[in-house]
Amino acid sequence: MPVTVVGSIAFDSVKTPFGERTRMLGGAAVHFALAASFFDDVRVVGPVGDDFGAAELAVLSARGIDVSDIEYVPGGETFFWAGEYGWDLASRETLETRLGVFADFDPKLSAAARDSDVLFLANIQPDLQRAVRAQCDGARFAALDSMNLWIEVARDSLVEAIATVDCLVLNDAELRELTGRPGLLAAAREVLAWGPPGPRTIIAKQGEYGAAMITESSYFSLPAFPLERVVDPTGAGDTFAGGFVGYIAAAGAESIDEELLRRAMAYGTALASFNVEEFGTERVARLSGQEIAARVSELERVTHFSDAPIEMRG
Amino acid sequence: MPVTVVGSIAFDSVKTPFGERTRMLGGAAVHFALAASFFDDVRVVGPVGDDFGAAELAVLSARGIDVSDIEYVPGGETFFWAGEYGWDLASRETLETRLGVFADFDPKLSAAARDSDVLFLANIQPDLQRAVRAQCDGARFAALDSMNLWIEVARDSLVEAIATVDCLVLNDAELRELTGRPGLLAAAREVLAWGPPGPRTIIAKQGEYGAAMITESSYFSLPAFPLERVVDPTGAGDTFAGGFVGYIAAAGAESIDEELLRRAMAYGTALASFNVEEFGTERVARLSGQEIAARVSELERVTHFSDAPIEMRG
Repeated sequence: MPVTVVGSIAFDSVKTPFGERTRMLGGAAVHFALAASFFDDVRVVGPVGDDFGAAELAVLSARGIDVSDIEYVPGGETFFWAGEYGWDLASRETLETRLGVFADFDPKLSAAARDSDVLFLANIQPDLQRAVRAQCDGARFAALDSMNLWIEVARDSLVEAIATVDCLVLNDAELRELTGRPGLLAAAREVLAWGPPGPRTIIAKQGEYGAAMITESSYFSLPAFPLERVVDPTGAGDTFAGGFVGYIAAAGAESIDEELLRRAMAYGTALASFNVEEFGTERVARLSGQEIAARVSELERVTHFSDAPIEMRG
Repeated sequence: MPVTVVGSIAFDSVKTPFGERTRMLGGAAVHFALAASFFDDVRVVGPVGDDFGAAELAVLSARGIDVSDIEYVPGGETFFWAGEYGWDLASRETLETRLGVFADFDPKLSAAARDSDVLFLANIQPDLQRAVRAQCDGARFAALDSMNLWIEVARDSLVEAIATVDCLVLNDAELRELTGRPGLLAAAREVLAWGPPGPRTIIAKQGEYGAAMITESSYFSLPAFPLERVVDPTGAGDTFAGGFVGYIAAAGAESIDEELLRRAMAYGTALASFNVEEFGTERVARLSGQEIAARVSELERVTHFSDAPIEMRG
């Protein structure tokens, strides 16, 4: 089922202990779309400026992504982010953010985008997420990501936006901040109660530790794929979401059950592991389905154990 | 096979967002021993002062732990630690540490302790760990824990101590600090090369995220058990180690293989999950083997997924 993603298309300048890149293609919608494109048709909605050229577009088109909903703003500048990571990549500092064309973004979805069966609202201002969700109200599976900024400056709107989707994808620290609950299970349960319809699935992204999924009746935890070397974590969460949502779209939203969601997380996790091995979109842009499948199989092996009950004392 | 643990026996004063306790029984050797006692015979070696009384001893004896190697130092004060945890329990501040009888601790193992087949060197000064290991050089499985302090003030001795054991159990951040390598795999691989004999198994404790195990030829990751409520994380790592090492001891050191080690991690994880649900030793002291087994089974369920390959694009 076709997937539409609405979110940032950006230029990123990133410095990590392993090197730096200036003005490389990035943005949540871009990372998401590249990952989801391994599974189904993907359409990107978002604004760009005059500085967004054929080379950037080609990265998306080469993966078969529909770019006809990308909005060119004459005289505008594409969203720009610059950041630097600490020695173990666990912390990062934003050096500069220029909203550019995003400051006045008023999403108008094409008929094709409105008809998408699967919708991903990447991290943008929650009023915009709600406006998009209203235009695309027929989607059979909608998911949403956000960030601490919106929790702090637009919490009410974010809570309303979350109540309109099937699945919330959020960093675990942000889930705690959003709910004021320090425990992951309690925080997730609170969000699950924000209906109806409200989300039925909460994905807590845990960075290098992986991700957890909480529904009303289940819990699942999956570690990150073990890597020899991480070069640039930028976009890992969006790449994970792209693999996760893309897999669900390909399987068909009518067949969503716990086992499918768990497998979708494994595909998202595999995709994210490739993303962080090189800067920006470099690695995912030349990735193959076989490579993804191999890492999903390996994930199964590195997480598997089987109990063999022994006699205990007491 | 009998297990000997050498380490701190302590009084802890702990404040968390859920309450506080003053001078409760604690210490690495105590938490380890209580957990390991569900699997095999356990002997505790460590010093206490005049303030250590019958009530504290009874908590250990009630679990069948051999306390005859606990050394009473006349006129001495038992090791004391006071700390306070932040709102999400992820960070903690040490308010006070009084070494007391630990300042002059010179471990002299009894013949029975020296004959133990399994040895755990809990977090103490690495010179002492080496001295104990030398006295107990016939142990067929020895593991060691440490902390950032010793990495910073006694790194050379710690590296030598690590080279004498089969298994290193360390917080993941400390493993990075110890090796200067930001990547977990690379850090573990470096320690694996500190032989011969050197450790063959590295356990990286990851707090609320669980733990990972790295050997020369394998990787395994296990999340923490999902809890409704965490009250006091103190001793979680030592309780994990007690369950892990205790399970290995009960299974017999001659049969250690990857599957056994993975199961041992699951038992350690289950034990640790009970430990943090109440203050100090309160929960583990009244725990049953059935409760432990139930959580190991649940861990199997919350970590399991099975791949169902789909056609990918590209």
